[in-house]
Amino acid sequence: MESIISLHNPLIKNYLRLLKSRRFRQQHKKIAIEGPNLVREALCAEIVPEVLFFTEEYYSSPAGKWIASVSDSIRKIMLTTSLFMEITSAETPQAVAAIVPYTFNIENDPLKNNSNLVLIIDRLQDPGNMGTLIRTAVAAGVNLIYCTSGCVDPYSPKVLRSTAGAIFHVVLQEIGDDRVQILKLKERGFQLVAADADGDYPYWSAGFHPDVALIIGNEATGIADDLLKFADLSVSIPINASVDSLNAAVAAGIILFEINRRRLGH
Amino acid sequence: MESIISLHNPLIKNYLRLLKSRRFRQQHKKIAIEGPNLVREALCAEIVPEVLFFTEEYYSSPAGKWIASVSDSIRKIMLTTSLFMEITSAETPQAVAAIVPYTFNIENDPLKNNSNLVLIIDRLQDPGNMGTLIRTAVAAGVNLIYCTSGCVDPYSPKVLRSTAGAIFHVVLQEIGDDRVQILKLKERGFQLVAADADGDYPYWSAGFHPDVALIIGNEATGIADDLLKFADLSVSIPINASVDSLNAAVAAGIILFEINRRRLGH
Repeated sequence: MESIISLHNPLIKNYLRLLKSRRFRQQHKKIAIEGPNLVREALCAEIVPEVLFFTEEYYSSPAGKWIASVSDSIRKIMLTTSLFMEITSAETPQAVAAIVPYTFNIENDPLKNNSNLVLIIDRLQDPGNMGTLIRTAVAAGVNLIYCTSGCVDPYSPKVLRSTAGAIFHVVLQEIGDDRVQILKLKERGFQLVAADADGDYPYWSAGFHPDVALIIGNEATGIADDLLKFADLSVSIPINASVDSLNAAVAAGIILFEINRRRLGH
Repeated sequence: MESIISLHNPLIKNYLRLLKSRRFRQQHKKIAIEGPNLVREALCAEIVPEVLFFTEEYYSSPAGKWIASVSDSIRKIMLTTSLFMEITSAETPQAVAAIVPYTFNIENDPLKNNSNLVLIIDRLQDPGNMGTLIRTAVAAGVNLIYCTSGCVDPYSPKVLRSTAGAIFHVVLQEIGDDRVQILKLKERGFQLVAADADGDYPYWSAGFHPDVALIIGNEATGIADDLLKFADLSVSIPINASVDSLNAAVAAGIILFEINRRRLGH
């Protein structure tokens, strides 16, 4: 086990750049994750950190016992509590953090022969919304998530935290303006469903196909026209007139769990 | 119209204390709200501000035209942009803010003769969750919200922002540890339903009564035992095993919209 006491250590500098810069994350195909929950969720998903940082206090506490048992191939680095406080982006101090290799465009096709549920997220801006939406989607059984290039980075610290680690259990890919992945979904026979306050059908009366891709749009402007044109169907969630709209993750949750429920035969 | 140029002005000091201190809000029965959306939602709900603050830039822009038309009984105060930047709690600068009187325990009974939907929020901590939960509840037709005393203050700036103004369209009351309001709901024949990952029934097969109160608990620890004991029924939302739990607002949305949908006969 090593220990670091300075903010100027190259490994710490590297960690901080991974925390702060989307471009740096993409260049190096690595992400910085913070907090025991996220680190343990990554380990559960068999994503092996390159480096683990932790405080001495955490390491010697019962909660931190697991660190001693992780593989020797992971570099383990002890930091002083004050140094750890300086590198954390969270409002509440965290006791453990990691640098994790991440394949931003996984080559394997995560789609099954049937009963696929795909989520397409278009230009969502709020990190908390993005994270909660990913968490909700994985909970509802979504096996592939596409984000358009205008979305907040799903690997930024706030988004990662809001996913509560669910992001490690799903294939997530960015799609470009050529929409080639959307065309492939159409070719494979997917029904594309747009969530839209002015949709054709209330979600309870819409008919869903065996393979569905749900599109969720930007908080203020909804789904971009050049994406919306691919939709086979649009569904709405009727709401009380005094409220303007639902939060994106809540709306997605209601529709995704409706699809899921019907698949379960209820 | 008046103008203020100093942070030391008593009205500005008052605004900042209302923004920052729960106790000050409760003592003075007023809240501080920020941003055009919230201020206009309050006006729509016929909540009349005591004071409106705005920048000269906003006032002379097309978006700010409405300010000139609001009642003369509302004090209108122009601030320099730099002063406005200093008093805002939001990450993105806002152009308008207000001090709004608020009756924290509205005496009128908001319950109808039947088909009531009540939400009971127990010790929810995250401001974003709290705001989204309130927004979701109002969208689903909830007409009364109870918060236990351990909840984050629903009138704090972050919560207000996350409600997107929905909070002005519902009666919201704090309930104490004596749970007297819960006993009254029971007396009135309400069915108390606990949202619980280990619930008795999946939400789709649970039977709901004409008057329902749904209880949503703390993010980590769920519903307190002395509240849970009042529940007639507990319902779960079956989720994918790789995810630990759903976000509180998403879970509430799925159950509340299920109740709502059945009332609409679907």
